[in-house]
Amino acid sequence: MRTQVAIVGAGPSGLLLSHLLAAHDIESVVVETRSRAHVLGRVRAGILEHSSVELLTAHGLGQRLTEEGLRHRGIHLQWPGERHRLDFVELVGRGVWVYGQTEVTKDLVAARERAGQQLVYEVTDTEVHDVDTDRPYVTCVDADGVAQRIDAEAVVGCDGSFGPSRHAVPEAARRTWERTYPYAWLGVLADVAPSTDELIYAWHPDGFALHSMRSPTVSRLYLQVPQGERVEDWSDDRIWTALAARLGHGQDGWTLNPGPIREKSVLPMRSFVQSPMRYGRLFLAGDAAHIVPPTGAKGLNLAMADVALLAPALAALLLRKDGALADAYSATALRRVWRSTHFSWWMTTMLHHNGDPFDAELQLSQLRWVATSQAGARGLAENYAGLPLDW
Amino acid sequence: MRTQVAIVGAGPSGLLLSHLLAAHDIESVVVETRSRAHVLGRVRAGILEHSSVELLTAHGLGQRLTEEGLRHRGIHLQWPGERHRLDFVELVGRGVWVYGQTEVTKDLVAARERAGQQLVYEVTDTEVHDVDTDRPYVTCVDADGVAQRIDAEAVVGCDGSFGPSRHAVPEAARRTWERTYPYAWLGVLADVAPSTDELIYAWHPDGFALHSMRSPTVSRLYLQVPQGERVEDWSDDRIWTALAARLGHGQDGWTLNPGPIREKSVLPMRSFVQSPMRYGRLFLAGDAAHIVPPTGAKGLNLAMADVALLAPALAALLLRKDGALADAYSATALRRVWRSTHFSWWMTTMLHHNGDPFDAELQLSQLRWVATSQAGARGLAENYAGLPLDW
Repeated sequence: MRTQVAIVGAGPSGLLLSHLLAAHDIESVVVETRSRAHVLGRVRAGILEHSSVELLTAHGLGQRLTEEGLRHRGIHLQWPGERHRLDFVELVGRGVWVYGQTEVTKDLVAARERAGQQLVYEVTDTEVHDVDTDRPYVTCVDADGVAQRIDAEAVVGCDGSFGPSRHAVPEAARRTWERTYPYAWLGVLADVAPSTDELIYAWHPDGFALHSMRSPTVSRLYLQVPQGERVEDWSDDRIWTALAARLGHGQDGWTLNPGPIREKSVLPMRSFVQSPMRYGRLFLAGDAAHIVPPTGAKGLNLAMADVALLAPALAALLLRKDGALADAYSATALRRVWRSTHFSWWMTTMLHHNGDPFDAELQLSQLRWVATSQAGARGLAENYAGLPLDW
Repeated sequence: MRTQVAIVGAGPSGLLLSHLLAAHDIESVVVETRSRAHVLGRVRAGILEHSSVELLTAHGLGQRLTEEGLRHRGIHLQWPGERHRLDFVELVGRGVWVYGQTEVTKDLVAARERAGQQLVYEVTDTEVHDVDTDRPYVTCVDADGVAQRIDAEAVVGCDGSFGPSRHAVPEAARRTWERTYPYAWLGVLADVAPSTDELIYAWHPDGFALHSMRSPTVSRLYLQVPQGERVEDWSDDRIWTALAARLGHGQDGWTLNPGPIREKSVLPMRSFVQSPMRYGRLFLAGDAAHIVPPTGAKGLNLAMADVALLAPALAALLLRKDGALADAYSATALRRVWRSTHFSWWMTTMLHHNGDPFDAELQLSQLRWVATSQAGARGLAENYAGLPLDW
């Protein structure tokens, strides 16, 4: 196969990139290790920044989002005895949307299929080659067991932190930073109307809890659990009891409505950055270059911001032989990556109990300040609602 | 001896408290382990918050401060290659004053001596007794070796973290929080005009540096050094070379002017809080209840805020038998204590190199955000210039 851009990975960044490239009349092939059903079904993030919604809408992907997505003006921030609302629209002039990554992926797959995009699922043994030349290529074995070679002018790794692309940058040319956290999230999807209009981020001595949602009938809830916790140790009853305690059921007349739990899983908490995000004709986007812990909902938005930068850079490079944007891609993207990495670390370490009593008091003092000082609230709002794409 | 309030410690909090109590016609005796010359000579903090200056001025202690103090609108925040100015007055409507703790102490001692205040220096074996009754007393041995007993209606511990007062709260009734940092400050006082109009806080891979000042002819400079560093290992030459590198001598035409170093010392970095700040008729103020690392210049200001709360509380308690303010003292004071403890920790951990490469990138991203985002800059300014006394 021959194409202009070979894209490794059909997550939101790979799919959106193929979509944005098509708008520049650039052809791409997307290869993906998972099945189409798996790609369409997996449950991930659920909050879109203002600028992510603008990007999707500007590229014809906003219809269902606008109809079914929930527009949120802010969040609730709480600790035992106190719940404060931060109104992002009032604070910084922009809010966020609740619209699951699963839904974004469905919209993207539908749009790409309508446009005749080549999406090659269930490939194995993917390898990236000759990225330091201008004739890079990707090899893999397709679902029928046939070896494939995709010759391209550029390769983009959208294959996450466990994919092969980021390792195709020679070790001597790359640097990585990593932080693991001593806790994880137990996430549940429940078929029950959310007990809150907007997300509740709750600090609690038992551990952090988050009440999120996917739709008016589906709640998404999270509990801080120790790293390595097993899902089997959490019965539905135990989950609802812990959520009720941490989210303040019964306080000031607020109640948490339990319901049938459809899905449970444990999410690890990790920060990871690889630099540079470009090596020769290989570009990295999304989780292939950076992982953030889920607190603050930055992962999906950061992936979209990467490809929003990358599509015009590739267009200039491939169509007009102008490499200026491509040369700037890594440094430009990494500025936002580190902003979001810092913000995600900040939200995470402010809200999760780590067993240290001094840290617990720092957290409470910081939460009080963020919830009651205009400057503190704006700082959170500005980062959470997201910085402009051209920031 | 019999008095209304026995004050242990003649640092700024003890001296200011005796001054504020006198304005309520409340008599006090101050006992101090050090000599008068030592109290008047020791070099400590040098930045006064807006509200500290207001407090001093409102109580007749503002004359020399206004004449000799340097009014600063903000600070410079820098890292290699970039220096940003934060204008606190523009950001939050208030600035800070450079006026050494040594000078504040001189003004306080002068005012107290003029008023005939009993200041008993060079006492030993100070002990606090019967604080759970309304006839507490302090015993000590005076400079002549004579045992003294000071009977009072209230005792205030202004004797720092190593003084006896905070231990007079029974162990079962108190709780402490502590954090030590893996670095210290090497501080120097140099007889040379400051090379900067306002303080420079500098992040550097070699470690933090701070260019402060005491007057138009005296510079105060600090270098991050490892914990346990010996002053003897730092020659004047080594100090100026390190300062020049970390503060960016030669960048954008800026030069650091070296000069004769008059004093060198190593300052430990520690956070400490003891709660409650009141037990029966014993009240704690300043360093006796809390220590902050010097980054952010909160220690002296926090001590003044404590006694500004405490003086009217003692007046109500002793003159009108109204205990409401005294009962509220600990909780009210601790709110600010934790705000400042958090802010000092935040400034400290943002600016000091700890050897972790991930933390270094978080620091740089945070510094960039603080220096370039209005919300980020306001957050620092609000805390640095200080919250109102009635916050």
